[in-house]
Amino acid sequence: MHNLSATRTFRLQQPLSLYRGRQISNICLAYECWGELNADKSNAILLLTGLSPGAHAASSPEDPEAGWWEQMLGSGKPIDTDNYFVICVNSLGSCKGSTGPASLNPDTGRPWRLEFPELALEDIAESAWQVVNSLGITQLDCLIGPSMGGMTALALLKQHPHCARRLINISSAVSATPFSIAIRSLQREAIVSDPNWQNGQYTDNRWPVSGMRLARKLGMISYRSADEWLGRFGRQSQDHFPPTVYGMNFAVESYLEAQAQKFIGQFDPVCYVYLSRAMDWFDAGDRHAGTVSDMLRQTNLESALVIGVSTDLLFPIQQQKDIAKELQAADIKTQMHDLDCIQGHDAFLIDIENFGPLVAQFLA
Amino acid sequence: MHNLSATRTFRLQQPLSLYRGRQISNICLAYECWGELNADKSNAILLLTGLSPGAHAASSPEDPEAGWWEQMLGSGKPIDTDNYFVICVNSLGSCKGSTGPASLNPDTGRPWRLEFPELALEDIAESAWQVVNSLGITQLDCLIGPSMGGMTALALLKQHPHCARRLINISSAVSATPFSIAIRSLQREAIVSDPNWQNGQYTDNRWPVSGMRLARKLGMISYRSADEWLGRFGRQSQDHFPPTVYGMNFAVESYLEAQAQKFIGQFDPVCYVYLSRAMDWFDAGDRHAGTVSDMLRQTNLESALVIGVSTDLLFPIQQQKDIAKELQAADIKTQMHDLDCIQGHDAFLIDIENFGPLVAQFLA
Repeated sequence: MHNLSATRTFRLQQPLSLYRGRQISNICLAYECWGELNADKSNAILLLTGLSPGAHAASSPEDPEAGWWEQMLGSGKPIDTDNYFVICVNSLGSCKGSTGPASLNPDTGRPWRLEFPELALEDIAESAWQVVNSLGITQLDCLIGPSMGGMTALALLKQHPHCARRLINISSAVSATPFSIAIRSLQREAIVSDPNWQNGQYTDNRWPVSGMRLARKLGMISYRSADEWLGRFGRQSQDHFPPTVYGMNFAVESYLEAQAQKFIGQFDPVCYVYLSRAMDWFDAGDRHAGTVSDMLRQTNLESALVIGVSTDLLFPIQQQKDIAKELQAADIKTQMHDLDCIQGHDAFLIDIENFGPLVAQFLA
Repeated sequence: MHNLSATRTFRLQQPLSLYRGRQISNICLAYECWGELNADKSNAILLLTGLSPGAHAASSPEDPEAGWWEQMLGSGKPIDTDNYFVICVNSLGSCKGSTGPASLNPDTGRPWRLEFPELALEDIAESAWQVVNSLGITQLDCLIGPSMGGMTALALLKQHPHCARRLINISSAVSATPFSIAIRSLQREAIVSDPNWQNGQYTDNRWPVSGMRLARKLGMISYRSADEWLGRFGRQSQDHFPPTVYGMNFAVESYLEAQAQKFIGQFDPVCYVYLSRAMDWFDAGDRHAGTVSDMLRQTNLESALVIGVSTDLLFPIQQQKDIAKELQAADIKTQMHDLDCIQGHDAFLIDIENFGPLVAQFLA
């Protein structure tokens, strides 16, 4: 684990009423900040994350370890902390410092696990907004969300229409496709089929490792692209693992195994299941009288930047075009960029050369 | 199980020396025939199958149950059994009447399971060719292979360059992409991670059901397309299963479950693992001095039809274009059709309206 000294914690004063029913008390949210908030508190940016990252988006003097969007965020970088005060919150329901199904249930003293209430992206949005408010900020300059974070950003706009003046929505969607639901359904099934899952009562000694391994590998398949792997691995063999009929003969198999090994100990299985399902359920237009563009019209957003990648399997480019269309139909000044990156859904984490200038120019 | 009365069995007289080493004795192959072989034995077609189908490609008076390519094969159909004598062989290594890892090892009296030698598509090709020869046929009018069968067809041409005058290669490839290897690697891992797998020593009472279920669902994800499911399922919910946080709320999940249930009892896990890996290993150009087109030039094929589908994830359309290019470079008269079907890799099984006329016209 890295040094968490840059992480701050906010405790919600009131129980949170959840979008799908029930309440949770004593919610803590881990968050991290960069840059300086200006005098009129008008230079704040909220960064909402994808499924697995924590609040540590970038390094800082307090925590020099590289963050998950290190090249995008910092002094002189596209999200320039010389000009902006940036907040990144670890999602409610996650396991990187915030309350979630892996936390202790204050009523029982045991981890929540499957007794945790059904979680929606609207709850993640609502709780993150309370962090923002706790800092004295009533309106963000910009709300930024890639992947699941882009859905959470739409949830926040639905619930707090005046929360931000600008929006950057990256590789995301108004709601999930059945293909993406199918992928995530299989990831969850792999986890809950692991005998160590024990209906959520796994222990540190009997962790659902094989289920998490499969889930992460399937995640990687959906996050990258066939073309990237063709260039990167081709049909190379490798010799790290015994070449048995069902073993790992090919470099791509070894790569997936290495990715899975990195992930297994780092993310809690029950949190994974909850966040994954929250993405399936999300629909930017639900519980709102009118269309998604009607909802967006009420936000008074001044402008929006939407970016997608043509090789994205999980959030196909048509979904970003749809978001842009809804924003435009709501008379919000919108730029849509259809990038030709080879890395698929994960391109925003890797291809900073293409994403960086678009974000920088929009924020400037 | 359906009535198998149309199935014939051929027993190889000699042990088969396998492509990756070792031999197998007492190989039996299940096959089925339709139509009449003409006097000079010049109207034979060999149909090589995808991973899971058996020899029962179409109904006949002896077995009226619909086959896996029922609409394509029969009297007056695109592969017209009024004109052609058609043979379909259940692949060596499969479990639908042919010898494979689920069969008894004659040396031990127990099922082979993981003691079965490493299987290559070249072995499937070689053994199917012996079935053809046993019927007195020395050259096929046409060799037809969809999916894995298209790879096996290339393997047969590599080993017996004069085996056929014509080739129909559908939704296949010269070798697998790393993306497809990754998908299959996960399917195998799901099976061998199931505690009931028992290193291949599963029993009927303790069958690796959850591994096979995951493998089949992932198969379906790779066989169909995101666009098809968007139109077919959208975000419909369903009520067959309890709506829990990790249960099945969406119609697409219910569909996958139904597909998996149909498959689980029908296909042997160890056979699945062997055939899946054989597809990864296959390379039409290996053990041949020269390029794939050099290999194809030696076949003296008169003509070839190559068909692919733009929505295919598992055998992307570029791979069929590559096959066509290799055939053309070998001076074989080749038609390439890039179909715009929505069903992905499985389109050849479903969209007979588009595939049928192409096959019929080519054979005419």
